Amino acid sequence: MKTRAAVAWKAGSPLTIEEVHLDGPRAGEVLVEVKATGICHTDHYTLSGADPEGLFPAILGHEGAGIVLEVGEGVPWLKPGDHVIPLYTPECRQCKFCLSRKTNLCQAIRATQGKGLMPDGSSRFKSADGQPLFHYMGTSTFANHIVVPGIALAKIREDAPFDKVCYIGCGVTTGVGAVLFTAKVEAGATVAVFGLGGIGLNVIQGARMVGADKIIGVDINPAREAMARRFGMTHFVNPTEVGNVVDHIVQLTDGGADYSFECVGHTPLMRQALECTHKGWGRSIIIGVAPAGAEISTRPFQLVTGRKWEGSAFGGARGRTDVPRIVDWYMDGKLKIDELITHKLRLEDINEGFALMERGESIRSVVEF
Amino acid sequence: MKTRAAVAWKAGSPLTIEEVHLDGPRAGEVLVEVKATGICHTDHYTLSGADPEGLFPAILGHEGAGIVLEVGEGVPWLKPGDHVIPLYTPECRQCKFCLSRKTNLCQAIRATQGKGLMPDGSSRFKSADGQPLFHYMGTSTFANHIVVPGIALAKIREDAPFDKVCYIGCGVTTGVGAVLFTAKVEAGATVAVFGLGGIGLNVIQGARMVGADKIIGVDINPAREAMARRFGMTHFVNPTEVGNVVDHIVQLTDGGADYSFECVGHTPLMRQALECTHKGWGRSIIIGVAPAGAEISTRPFQLVTGRKWEGSAFGGARGRTDVPRIVDWYMDGKLKIDELITHKLRLEDINEGFALMERGESIRSVVEF
Repeated sequence: MKTRAAVAWKAGSPLTIEEVHLDGPRAGEVLVEVKATGICHTDHYTLSGADPEGLFPAILGHEGAGIVLEVGEGVPWLKPGDHVIPLYTPECRQCKFCLSRKTNLCQAIRATQGKGLMPDGSSRFKSADGQPLFHYMGTSTFANHIVVPGIALAKIREDAPFDKVCYIGCGVTTGVGAVLFTAKVEAGATVAVFGLGGIGLNVIQGARMVGADKIIGVDINPAREAMARRFGMTHFVNPTEVGNVVDHIVQLTDGGADYSFECVGHTPLMRQALECTHKGWGRSIIIGVAPAGAEISTRPFQLVTGRKWEGSAFGGARGRTDVPRIVDWYMDGKLKIDELITHKLRLEDINEGFALMERGESIRSVVEF
Repeated sequence: MKTRAAVAWKAGSPLTIEEVHLDGPRAGEVLVEVKATGICHTDHYTLSGADPEGLFPAILGHEGAGIVLEVGEGVPWLKPGDHVIPLYTPECRQCKFCLSRKTNLCQAIRATQGKGLMPDGSSRFKSADGQPLFHYMGTSTFANHIVVPGIALAKIREDAPFDKVCYIGCGVTTGVGAVLFTAKVEAGATVAVFGLGGIGLNVIQGARMVGADKIIGVDINPAREAMARRFGMTHFVNPTEVGNVVDHIVQLTDGGADYSFECVGHTPLMRQALECTHKGWGRSIIIGVAPAGAEISTRPFQLVTGRKWEGSAFGGARGRTDVPRIVDWYMDGKLKIDELITHKLRLEDINEGFALMERGESIRSVVEF
């Protein structure tokens, strides 16, 4: 079939809107009509050329929501008409990782996904002139129609609005999940959040949802304070206004935060986030993606005296199991999404979405097909 | 009263055996006759002058066992005749740390202990010519009689031999406890242990005690292999004989160890120990004490993909609660200690114990009074 997509022909160039060819689903695969997609920093990272694993030409996008149109063999849990969110972290429920009960990082299709291909080693996309186009993160939600593995689709309730819950495909789950599934923050805890962009705001609302007492936001941009307070932040720290961020947070929390979250991808912040946690039990969770080759450092004494340094990918969420629950929490009013979607665009204007992100003017831009 | 002690007059000099003056116990304190004491690397570290917090003149030693002679006011849980192990990590059961249920690092007397003093800010020791001598780690077990805070004594069974269970005052608990209390290793796990000295051997027997399947020991000294196998090691890795230790362990464990323990205090090993653990759930526990100022580093990707970097002090053991249980496990034959005590010395020969350690000839030397 034919569909419309934003194609990334090479690093550093704008996306071009084109009609592309899409092969139908093979065994284990599903054809989905994408109804809406967010534009995320990770798309920007890859398009910029900074991502050493970036492949071109490709169809980017990994934060979508849509409707199942056709189901290949061997995917009995889905049928045409189901509403779904594509998952760049699948959940096969069969691999060593899924069965470990200790991680959400299903590895069933990792090798081919990393190569921009479906599990059988081929692409379903071709350009109008017949050139194969790479899939991206197994999702490629910048196309109006996509083929994805059935294990990479979370079935969600049908009354959830696509243009909001698409954000659960990455940003909401990454932030909220890091609190609920990775850190398992408990009521009464003190939490420090480094970086108040989309991920940081979702960490904050996750911490509020589970009843954290003190939720400290750290950002050099004072304009972030008002929004963060609406999401549950109780204290704002601007590093340009305090002498030493670590000492400041340690004082504010009577010894250190119980949990901290780094949501920027800046390795010096990761160290501050660790060192501002409480002796004996502080846990610091890295969410942000650091530049290739960057390293984190600290004195081992920080760990020997009881702090733990950890990370979170896709919020520790098992996609098929947890994403539908997060959709429910949004629909029940426990989580806010509407306020985070600052811009709605047509596919033709997708490059404007990247520009808004670069200028720091958007929290999240969403493209509706 | 008068007692005999090995006094450390200054960094880098041998200890001298002297008659010293000991004041009796004040409120909250207890007079203990030390019957036996181990000589630990930490004593050596401080005596060498490398410890930036080392104080002189002092009476070193922190791995003892003995009998209560006299109890000051306010220590109703102890009476003369009780057998005890002094605790450099006390357990007050009242402070924020003890009540957190998340750490063993009781802070009740930390400030004065770090200054070489009893909780009231004074020393109980004087040299023969009246000069105050510092306490060390709140224990000073290189003296035949000591005064220690009551919260820093674990009461143990009376049939346990002092010359063996003194080792539970530090080394055994540090190694076994890191497995049982910090990591909570489960049956069937794979465990990698970096460094097969006294701590490493105790990590190994802890892992065996809880039913770990694969217990991999890493040491550049091939002479360590035989003893480590007797303690439960199933695989030996000599870094001088394999190309890349991390890759080797990842292959040996089909993806990485579930748990690793660094028992040396060498920061490059700490990185290897982290990176040889399994994606998704590997946990690496730092036990070794690194040189002052040394830092650990890694790429944050190691953590974002599910590995956790942690540490352990005194094996995560709450001294008064857990040390008596470890004594029971030794008496029940679940843990070996006799084989680890390679040398018995008189107090007069204590400097020989340091020399044996320097030459790598002892696992543990014990002084009997």
